[in-house]
Amino acid sequence: MKHAILTALLLATLGACATSPRKEASMRRFGIVIHGGAGTILRSEMTAELESDYRRALGEARDAGYAVLQRGGGAVDAVVAAVKVMEDSPLFNAGKGAVLNAAGDCEMDASIMDGRTRAGGGVAIVRRIKNPIDAARLVMDKTSHVLLAGTAADDLARSHGLAIVDPDYFKTERRLQQWRKARELEQRKQSTRGLHERVSDLAGDPELRVGTVGAVALDQAGNLAAATSTGGRTHKAVGRVGDSPILGAGTWADNRFCAVSGTGHGEMFIRTTAARDVAAHVEFQGMDLDQATRAVIKNIESVGGDGGLIAIDRHGNIAMNFDTPGMYRAFRLSDGTTSIAIFD
Amino acid sequence: MKHAILTALLLATLGACATSPRKEASMRRFGIVIHGGAGTILRSEMTAELESDYRRALGEARDAGYAVLQRGGGAVDAVVAAVKVMEDSPLFNAGKGAVLNAAGDCEMDASIMDGRTRAGGGVAIVRRIKNPIDAARLVMDKTSHVLLAGTAADDLARSHGLAIVDPDYFKTERRLQQWRKARELEQRKQSTRGLHERVSDLAGDPELRVGTVGAVALDQAGNLAAATSTGGRTHKAVGRVGDSPILGAGTWADNRFCAVSGTGHGEMFIRTTAARDVAAHVEFQGMDLDQATRAVIKNIESVGGDGGLIAIDRHGNIAMNFDTPGMYRAFRLSDGTTSIAIFD
Repeated sequence: MKHAILTALLLATLGACATSPRKEASMRRFGIVIHGGAGTILRSEMTAELESDYRRALGEARDAGYAVLQRGGGAVDAVVAAVKVMEDSPLFNAGKGAVLNAAGDCEMDASIMDGRTRAGGGVAIVRRIKNPIDAARLVMDKTSHVLLAGTAADDLARSHGLAIVDPDYFKTERRLQQWRKARELEQRKQSTRGLHERVSDLAGDPELRVGTVGAVALDQAGNLAAATSTGGRTHKAVGRVGDSPILGAGTWADNRFCAVSGTGHGEMFIRTTAARDVAAHVEFQGMDLDQATRAVIKNIESVGGDGGLIAIDRHGNIAMNFDTPGMYRAFRLSDGTTSIAIFD
Repeated sequence: MKHAILTALLLATLGACATSPRKEASMRRFGIVIHGGAGTILRSEMTAELESDYRRALGEARDAGYAVLQRGGGAVDAVVAAVKVMEDSPLFNAGKGAVLNAAGDCEMDASIMDGRTRAGGGVAIVRRIKNPIDAARLVMDKTSHVLLAGTAADDLARSHGLAIVDPDYFKTERRLQQWRKARELEQRKQSTRGLHERVSDLAGDPELRVGTVGAVALDQAGNLAAATSTGGRTHKAVGRVGDSPILGAGTWADNRFCAVSGTGHGEMFIRTTAARDVAAHVEFQGMDLDQATRAVIKNIESVGGDGGLIAIDRHGNIAMNFDTPGMYRAFRLSDGTTSIAIFD
């Protein structure tokens, strides 16, 4: 792990003689950390205008979540608010702007976890839900299940009144170009290999990774939550499920330890239970979040993957680690600490 | 955890002066442990004939896997062989005999993990693959993905020549009866509740749980593997994905620590990354398999679930723990130790 490491300690002073519930609440530590994908863009390819667009969108997403926390709202509401801004932005690979699969369609994955109850919900390969993170929350709140896949998840969302859109809503010209490039690469590879190696081999191509979005939050009541949403990988196989809808792989939250969201080579995050392992290092080994996220990224590297992880714990400590050239990221904490960054 | 605990130590003596590769290999410890589901039947409901059928099927599945190990085959081949016998038997909730979802269809999940490489593969909500565990292995061996869901997984299996059957192949009269009972219960519950509580609330009903099948093995080369396959829960929501296709939740294998397969309330196995956590307790806390599986079952109970776990480590130690009235289970080790059991 050769790149940026950032750990901020929230040094909010807790008033020992708070006189009103309102004041007491306002003095608790809280905060939010978000990511908009790791390893998706090289500095050499980034224009000033595009960078400005990304920074603005990251700031909006972060502040949408922070506003929920500031007015005393819950961590679950905050991470959903932040993720929805990124799902609605065409800049990120989630919701509008999701990448296209091998068939040229968008199939999206999302999950959420509530650290208070360790309840969670996820949806996989959905095609019509405007905000997949809302559907993940629906699975958590309104069903006895944890993960729903395919058209049944779209149908559930519709029956509960979530916004449903035409599948074309998600597609952007930029993603179509990436898909064409991927298809060309795939065809070139196919011409030199047998059938067995062909199936979505491109999913691992670093040129075609386009990230994921996610958020982790600590609210004023001390609750943690995490949320992750993605379109997956360009030219992925139809029906491919990545780490983002899976608790333990892309998303984890447990009030006792931390909330975590990941972005990167999803298959490797599944094979290393990346998000859970961050918490496991804290739980079983007493690591801090910086150590824990570094250790997990090393483990992801040991099976050939890479990516990034964001985390927040119940004390308001945060970590944002990655081993890719960059990770779109931002945070805001109740002590006034705040940042938006893309590269190291 | 109030019920049966069984841990066997494999006491094979390793010859220090083995003279030929053949002899050396034959003296290495190896073995297999299987389960056919936890908490699925009460002793009071078990007839002598049915019990005999289950014991025979468990023995056949175990011995199919053991035969692979005995002739020097790999752990991955062994767990697949064992699981396929149970998938082909109408007695178990996997492959033929899978339970029916809310729409009266079979949607099956399976996964496999190779402890040597920590590679894995899974399929979710497949409807036409005769042996879902073969498809899970296909995903592991022939794609760059780890999990495929829905008709795309069926299509992949077909394109690689796996046996495809009509969806009716899986359905048995016994499962249809369970489904009718579940539907009645559901309708009764619906009449007294609002829409929000309705969605597959029955999935948690202990009367309607019907288990999962799984196997873990240690081969003569010292490699570990785990495999799990299921029809899910009776009257589950269409599109519901349980723990069985998810690495870390229902299945885990890592040569350094252990191989694990779970059966029980799948949602709670996902929320506790049950299979991974068994290995995490071994890795981070130095627990033995009995301690690790007990600790994980306690954690599953802490979120309201129950079930069972089987595990084997690289030394040939095994564990089969559960907190349900019974768990179909069997093992055979190269020291001659062997057992078939259902209740405590």
